[in-house]
Amino acid sequence: MKPSIPRGTRDFGPQEMTRRNYIFDTIRDVFKLHGYLQIETPAMENLSTLTGKYGEEGDQLLFKILNSRLHESKEKENLQKAFDKTLQSATNTDVLTERALRYDLTVPFARYVVMHQNDMTFPFKRYQIQNVWRADKPQKGRYREFYQCDADVIGSTSLLNEIDLLLIIDEVFGKLGLGVTIKLNNRKVLAGIAELIDAQDKIIDITVAIDKLDKIGEQKVLEELFAKGLSNEAIEKLKPIIFIQGNNESKLESLQKIIANDIGQKGIEELKYIVEKVGPMLSSNCKIETDITLARGLNYYTGAIIEVKVNDSRSEFTSSICGGGRYDDLTGIFGLANMSGVGISFGADRIYDVLMEANLFPNDVEFNTQVLFVNFGEAEQQYCLTLIKQLHSANISAVMFPEQAKMKKQMGYADANKIPFVALIGSQELQDQTITIKQMSTGNQQCIAKSELVNFILKS
Amino acid sequence: MKPSIPRGTRDFGPQEMTRRNYIFDTIRDVFKLHGYLQIETPAMENLSTLTGKYGEEGDQLLFKILNSRLHESKEKENLQKAFDKTLQSATNTDVLTERALRYDLTVPFARYVVMHQNDMTFPFKRYQIQNVWRADKPQKGRYREFYQCDADVIGSTSLLNEIDLLLIIDEVFGKLGLGVTIKLNNRKVLAGIAELIDAQDKIIDITVAIDKLDKIGEQKVLEELFAKGLSNEAIEKLKPIIFIQGNNESKLESLQKIIANDIGQKGIEELKYIVEKVGPMLSSNCKIETDITLARGLNYYTGAIIEVKVNDSRSEFTSSICGGGRYDDLTGIFGLANMSGVGISFGADRIYDVLMEANLFPNDVEFNTQVLFVNFGEAEQQYCLTLIKQLHSANISAVMFPEQAKMKKQMGYADANKIPFVALIGSQELQDQTITIKQMSTGNQQCIAKSELVNFILKS
Repeated sequence: MKPSIPRGTRDFGPQEMTRRNYIFDTIRDVFKLHGYLQIETPAMENLSTLTGKYGEEGDQLLFKILNSRLHESKEKENLQKAFDKTLQSATNTDVLTERALRYDLTVPFARYVVMHQNDMTFPFKRYQIQNVWRADKPQKGRYREFYQCDADVIGSTSLLNEIDLLLIIDEVFGKLGLGVTIKLNNRKVLAGIAELIDAQDKIIDITVAIDKLDKIGEQKVLEELFAKGLSNEAIEKLKPIIFIQGNNESKLESLQKIIANDIGQKGIEELKYIVEKVGPMLSSNCKIETDITLARGLNYYTGAIIEVKVNDSRSEFTSSICGGGRYDDLTGIFGLANMSGVGISFGADRIYDVLMEANLFPNDVEFNTQVLFVNFGEAEQQYCLTLIKQLHSANISAVMFPEQAKMKKQMGYADANKIPFVALIGSQELQDQTITIKQMSTGNQQCIAKSELVNFILKS
Repeated sequence: MKPSIPRGTRDFGPQEMTRRNYIFDTIRDVFKLHGYLQIETPAMENLSTLTGKYGEEGDQLLFKILNSRLHESKEKENLQKAFDKTLQSATNTDVLTERALRYDLTVPFARYVVMHQNDMTFPFKRYQIQNVWRADKPQKGRYREFYQCDADVIGSTSLLNEIDLLLIIDEVFGKLGLGVTIKLNNRKVLAGIAELIDAQDKIIDITVAIDKLDKIGEQKVLEELFAKGLSNEAIEKLKPIIFIQGNNESKLESLQKIIANDIGQKGIEELKYIVEKVGPMLSSNCKIETDITLARGLNYYTGAIIEVKVNDSRSEFTSSICGGGRYDDLTGIFGLANMSGVGISFGADRIYDVLMEANLFPNDVEFNTQVLFVNFGEAEQQYCLTLIKQLHSANISAVMFPEQAKMKKQMGYADANKIPFVALIGSQELQDQTITIKQMSTGNQQCIAKSELVNFILKS
């Protein structure tokens, strides 16, 4: 009988909501300043839209919707066959299900662009703040339902878009008061490295392995590369590249000498262009660091790869809190070729945890009702209701305690809800057309004329 | 290959989003003014939380989530048995699914209250604006995913809560500029009627039948009542009650004479109390009408029943756009007794349709980028980026066209996105540290100093 919620999901109470809204509002405001337009897509997509877009593991993590009224199906035999298939493999569920919950906001966006291309002007800058669902094993900081806040530009290959997105990152975390480091790489550099060590066919293995450098360390990465079939010679060639040191400029110059092939040079040039242009514009809160070990484990990036880490003495958070990159063929999977896209995604849930840890939520982020009218009884109620209406018209939140309860209970309600002012209107006040107002923080009480109420609250 | 979205779901583009946000923001602001606190609950609930709460038909309309990794289940035999059961009845899906998408916001709220009761202060006023899903047959104006905007008070039986909610309705539609009629009934009046005609066991049938009066007319309602087993005598007794005419006061007075039993009298008293108190406070946009044929087809209401209809010459919309009521045992289903709740729910999607029909969206509701910087090339870009950063700091949205495209294309972008100002910075402007600004509505162009930009836009 005791109710519960599914594992990996969460309820958000009023206090969490005000903090979450503070994060969403901050991100949304910056997106809008930069000219991104909001869209929303349905929670469910057709399975055909989602399947095969997130790799084999991703397919397993989709939350699939059971087709309705299975028991009414006229083809029970087919149903049995489909069910047998389901028992064999996770992806054979086509009669049992034909829809699933969205897994990210990028694939639905690509689908959106293809469906609505005739109503759109390109380049199209869109933002989208919605929840996504993944049937992942829940653990600390990893949920089955969480929000993504995405901004993408589609239909433009200009690196000015990357610059725009990096400025957005700077501004968002600047407004949130959090120091960060933007790590930047380029998929073409990774391709150049693979070509250099003559292992183009192993670019994914290389990418996946060196992406783990932060987590598992140098030795384990080299072991993994060896296990993936890289020769000792190739690994020796790789070492000076992935362990390169120095500031952005010197790193890129060294790389430019080592990775002499076309694709590698192109990637380094792109990195240089972006860093040179955006570097001087970033606030002191936001460092930028080229990092050729950054791969984000994703194979669809074709240009810039972006990841943001906390760089703030008040936080020990190590996971990325924002990430993104460029994919030259975002909509090709849905039949629309030559649409390059670049985008970033803020992880609101992780940002929440960091801001809590670093104590960075402003004190006034919490929304509280401003005035509680104590309920003394029938006679005074109408008087209170009229005053409350006046406060509402002046955009001041105010409530009357609905029950004629004991004073202690009513004051306790003001306390629990952090309501700063309590209005006391008894028979005397009613007769004099006044209000006794108690300021909860000081305990001070004063009697004011009815007509002064709105101004009294506004100037307090 | 052509992508599509599931039937009954929708994409929302930028223009729809700004209009939708206008509705949500309006409702949210009024909820907050009245001291309601926001919560959010997960999209998925355990099936045990939802099943049996919406009647037999409701159970059929739940979108159920297929359990993950069925093919890995070690109990394939049990699975087969469960599947056989699924084929027999819609509700036997316990091995295939154990979660479903929420169907409304009321049951999740009741579940929330029971789970978090120890962290809450009662009475608790909460609002919740989230989407819900129903596997209903899609048709015009009826979607499988749609938003509800709910405000409820739990833990107080005072009728001041009903009054508060009616004032919220008045304010929301007042701000939206739409004339409405609030229809008000009380479940106790319906119970009193059933007692009067000696058909207490048929109260649900009576309720369901007279609820259809608006839709199917008097004759058909009487036929339905007869078909449900009501005697001719009972029907004759019923007629003067359900066809009662007059203003609120006279209707209630007549009823008070006819329905002489305790429960009926109690219901009429409650109606009188609410109408007398709230009537004088409502704006001229908002009429209130007691209507004892109003039942909302829902059996869980125990007191007030509320429904809002459009009453505006600019709209022919007849469905209800907001509704609610009181249920004395909201959380009893989850084991917490004696928690009376009263609430209302705004149907954002229907309100959207009405505001479109009546042309009531304000012109400035649409969010547009304020300034487009034309991209003339490398040399001017850094200059533009710096100016854009200044505009952003002043909270003015501005973008540079990312490509060095033909003038016509860039101006076309400003047109398509309704951007009011275009900034033109070529080599001359760069040299003089000026900006040529074109106002798109007039075609006027003028050259201003770089330092004047922010003020120029702000005062335009």
